[in-house]
Amino acid sequence: MLPDQTILRIPGPTPIPPSVQQAMSQPMIGHRNQETKDLLQTIKPNLKPVFGTEQDVLILAGSGTAGLEAAVVNTVQPGDEVLIIVTGAFGDRFAQICSEYQITSHRYDVAWGEAVSPEAIKAYLAKHPEIKAVFATYCETSTGVLNPIPELAKVIHQQTDVLFIVDGVSCVGGVQTKMDTWGIDILVTGSQKAMMLPPGLTFAAVSERAWHVINKNERPSFYLDFKRYHDQSANNSTPFTPALSLLFGLKQALAMMEEEGLDHVYKRHQTMKDMARAAFRALNIPLLTTDEAASPTVTAVKPDDFDPEALRKVLKDDFGLSIAGGQKHLKGNIFRIGHMGYCSPADLLQTITIIEIALHKVGKMVELGKGTKAAQETLLKGGN
Amino acid sequence: MLPDQTILRIPGPTPIPPSVQQAMSQPMIGHRNQETKDLLQTIKPNLKPVFGTEQDVLILAGSGTAGLEAAVVNTVQPGDEVLIIVTGAFGDRFAQICSEYQITSHRYDVAWGEAVSPEAIKAYLAKHPEIKAVFATYCETSTGVLNPIPELAKVIHQQTDVLFIVDGVSCVGGVQTKMDTWGIDILVTGSQKAMMLPPGLTFAAVSERAWHVINKNERPSFYLDFKRYHDQSANNSTPFTPALSLLFGLKQALAMMEEEGLDHVYKRHQTMKDMARAAFRALNIPLLTTDEAASPTVTAVKPDDFDPEALRKVLKDDFGLSIAGGQKHLKGNIFRIGHMGYCSPADLLQTITIIEIALHKVGKMVELGKGTKAAQETLLKGGN
Repeated sequence: MLPDQTILRIPGPTPIPPSVQQAMSQPMIGHRNQETKDLLQTIKPNLKPVFGTEQDVLILAGSGTAGLEAAVVNTVQPGDEVLIIVTGAFGDRFAQICSEYQITSHRYDVAWGEAVSPEAIKAYLAKHPEIKAVFATYCETSTGVLNPIPELAKVIHQQTDVLFIVDGVSCVGGVQTKMDTWGIDILVTGSQKAMMLPPGLTFAAVSERAWHVINKNERPSFYLDFKRYHDQSANNSTPFTPALSLLFGLKQALAMMEEEGLDHVYKRHQTMKDMARAAFRALNIPLLTTDEAASPTVTAVKPDDFDPEALRKVLKDDFGLSIAGGQKHLKGNIFRIGHMGYCSPADLLQTITIIEIALHKVGKMVELGKGTKAAQETLLKGGN
Repeated sequence: MLPDQTILRIPGPTPIPPSVQQAMSQPMIGHRNQETKDLLQTIKPNLKPVFGTEQDVLILAGSGTAGLEAAVVNTVQPGDEVLIIVTGAFGDRFAQICSEYQITSHRYDVAWGEAVSPEAIKAYLAKHPEIKAVFATYCETSTGVLNPIPELAKVIHQQTDVLFIVDGVSCVGGVQTKMDTWGIDILVTGSQKAMMLPPGLTFAAVSERAWHVINKNERPSFYLDFKRYHDQSANNSTPFTPALSLLFGLKQALAMMEEEGLDHVYKRHQTMKDMARAAFRALNIPLLTTDEAASPTVTAVKPDDFDPEALRKVLKDDFGLSIAGGQKHLKGNIFRIGHMGYCSPADLLQTITIIEIALHKVGKMVELGKGTKAAQETLLKGGN
């Protein structure tokens, strides 16, 4: 293995572009100075199209879970009942948060690797008019599933006035997201996935409908109080000390996304999904999800005749390439390749090519080049 | 193309390892302070095995050409005759330097793409006993040829006491080099190739035999005067202000080479040579050189049915991948892939895979994956 070479293909944290890394190395500035106001003023309009919203996107210093918890505590009054759609480990996190606050939660479990059916949720809500909010995961990182958020929003808002609260952590920035048009009430994400930044920021955009609920909410919260962030955002400021170096990086990451064009960013992620799936299909190694349910940002593979952990070890030891394993009951059964953010089709080709070699090293004698070829063909067809 | 992605596969400058980049970002220190002495003291012993010498390796702030010129002006007295072996553009540079100083030069030209024959040089020297020094290029970057330096040293020293002066710019650090054992009198290299640094340093190691000649040399030189560097090197210092940030980086680059082990470094480069050649052979695209003459650090390809410049343009525009074209009369006829320094077999696989796609885009319909597969097989056979 080449010393100092790390090829990061886990579904977050993702690689940092050199210009973002450089931006983050800028000297500190006073967080109440004009420079910080200017920085936030530059960032604000550029975040909106990524979320597909006209609302200010709130920025909190914290990990994605802080954003998820904030979405819960800001909206759910004591006594409210909520529905949590659990399609994997991160849907389960919403459930844990609600449990911690002793919120009466309906839990709708879906087999890991499948997407939730909007019709099923429609039926569930029809039977449970007491539900005040529905929590869902856009991309379920643990399985590589992209849940049908637009369709869910439609059925939820058709028959009730519940809030629709979405964890977009492992896809917002890599997958088209139209919060306002679709009718998402709170959309949360983190910095370390498709946003091309280190972990440490969480973002939340809040609809008008959600603000009505939040403004009447009497549950105590301080650091996670959306209202405080919203009030300060109007002045291009923050209620608490912001993570300045991450904001320097965010400004540059957003500039890169604008330079590439969001449509192209989304197309690139879609192409990488298609490439990864074509490769493993050509190698005859089963995928965990269907094409329809699969996320453009992460691909889960469920081999039936070799140990994914052995593969991961060879990749790491011999090539410095990190991919993810399975979580909870999928541990040892699947591996997951992150292809989001600062990741190009060329990077994914490299990953596939190396995996073919590593498969040989773990005794799975695939035809070398076959998966690569399928991915190359997909890229040539789909554009770059 | 992914913004901010540059894949650098030219034969220098080569990619900088992140830890070297980071080392170079250290704050400045006083160049006459103890810290600089400590830095040079750490570097000194670690440079020697890379050159295969017990001599101190002199470090000049300057590009490789400064080192080549220094080798000329320090050794060649007015009136001396020299032999210059020209196997490509960089052999020609020695000739230009000698011409500038009006040195009587014998020029031994070899067809570009071929290595020089030691027997031919033996015969030439036998006929020209007036020759005082032989200049040769170890790796001829312009053609990807590795000249047979050990064999040349043998025939040169067998019959005469001429100095053997070698330009090792595009291979020292990536190819085994035994200056003392082989009998190289001056070995020059630069920082921006297999040494994994930006351009800006040139290195020269000088044999005892060469010092005898240099000490008697009366040709004026100041900045390029090896004696000044040698004298100061003994005190872990430099005669002129050193390029400190590059020295910070050099310390780290040498640590990386030690960590990997020089033998493994050389094996890695050899493997990458074999991979590149296997790939183009599988794709039925002609190589410029024979296997025997080819360098482990750069591969030159001479297509007969597509335009290398069109290929280079697609690689750059669509993938951010830079490879080199031809120089002088090979311009437009060849392309060259650098695989040295901070470049892994996995990186080369990526390059080959992308080239296959780019070939399709320029209308050369190779079988996708075929070259990649040949390179994968070579890597699996040769180890990693």
